[in-house]
Amino acid sequence: MRHKSFKANLCPVARSLDTIGEWWSLLIVRDALSGIRRFSDFQTSLGLAKNILSARLKKLVACGIMEQVPASDGSAYQEYALTPKGRELFPVIVALRQWGESYLFARGEKRLQVLDKRTRKPPRLEVRNAKGEIVTANDLELVTVKN
Amino acid sequence: MRHKSFKANLCPVARSLDTIGEWWSLLIVRDALSGIRRFSDFQTSLGLAKNILSARLKKLVACGIMEQVPASDGSAYQEYALTPKGRELFPVIVALRQWGESYLFARGEKRLQVLDKRTRKPPRLEVRNAKGEIVTANDLELVTVKN
Repeated sequence: MRHKSFKANLCPVARSLDTIGEWWSLLIVRDALSGIRRFSDFQTSLGLAKNILSARLKKLVACGIMEQVPASDGSAYQEYALTPKGRELFPVIVALRQWGESYLFARGEKRLQVLDKRTRKPPRLEVRNAKGEIVTANDLELVTVKN
Repeated sequence: MRHKSFKANLCPVARSLDTIGEWWSLLIVRDALSGIRRFSDFQTSLGLAKNILSARLKKLVACGIMEQVPASDGSAYQEYALTPKGRELFPVIVALRQWGESYLFARGEKRLQVLDKRTRKPPRLEVRNAKGEIVTANDLELVTVKN
């Protein structure tokens, strides 16, 4: 579905969705964060048509989220790597993962789980204020600032 | 664009996007987290057509993310309120906001900023392991578990 652009919106949430809110984009970032770099590996993981994968990767490159780099094994292939801007989407993926784990699986269903390698336990994502206290939506207010 | 469903996918990220990855859904949740409850207020905030807002709200209710409740002022209107499952999307919104703030505004551009009411500073979202250490994507591994 076509929709208006939020490119000039004052809200960072709207601009983020304008950039990575398209279907597939965040799943490509998820895969890239788990170490996938090759077109064919993204295709296998996501099971989507080449032309769509190609268009999404092109957009992610254009937005500065991914970049094309020479293959790590020295072959002629190009690979896709996350830029620092792309790697910073990690908390977005963790937040989506945490919510999905909590609410979208029935008891007894199999699901993927991420574990921290050192503690062998799932990581936790938390929103804290400058004093280190956990905050909820009610603790926040919106102001307009100049960047 | 139509796409395949991830309802039965083993990955919680894919299931989350299947549920709230449609354009507008997360912006409705964002508005609800800032206290908006009325159809007309969502419409004013988002500037979208009534039929699309109505369809999105209906889906959010069907997914258990929002519920229709009697108006808080005792009038005959129905309002839309987040359920606990919906309120738990707060970290997803904060993560999108934090990324947008960091990367999608030019110097000197105006933008909305959330502040913690107590400290008057922006909240921070962090991913930590069970020992309280900050983790990155490289610290994590995927396993399959039974829910």
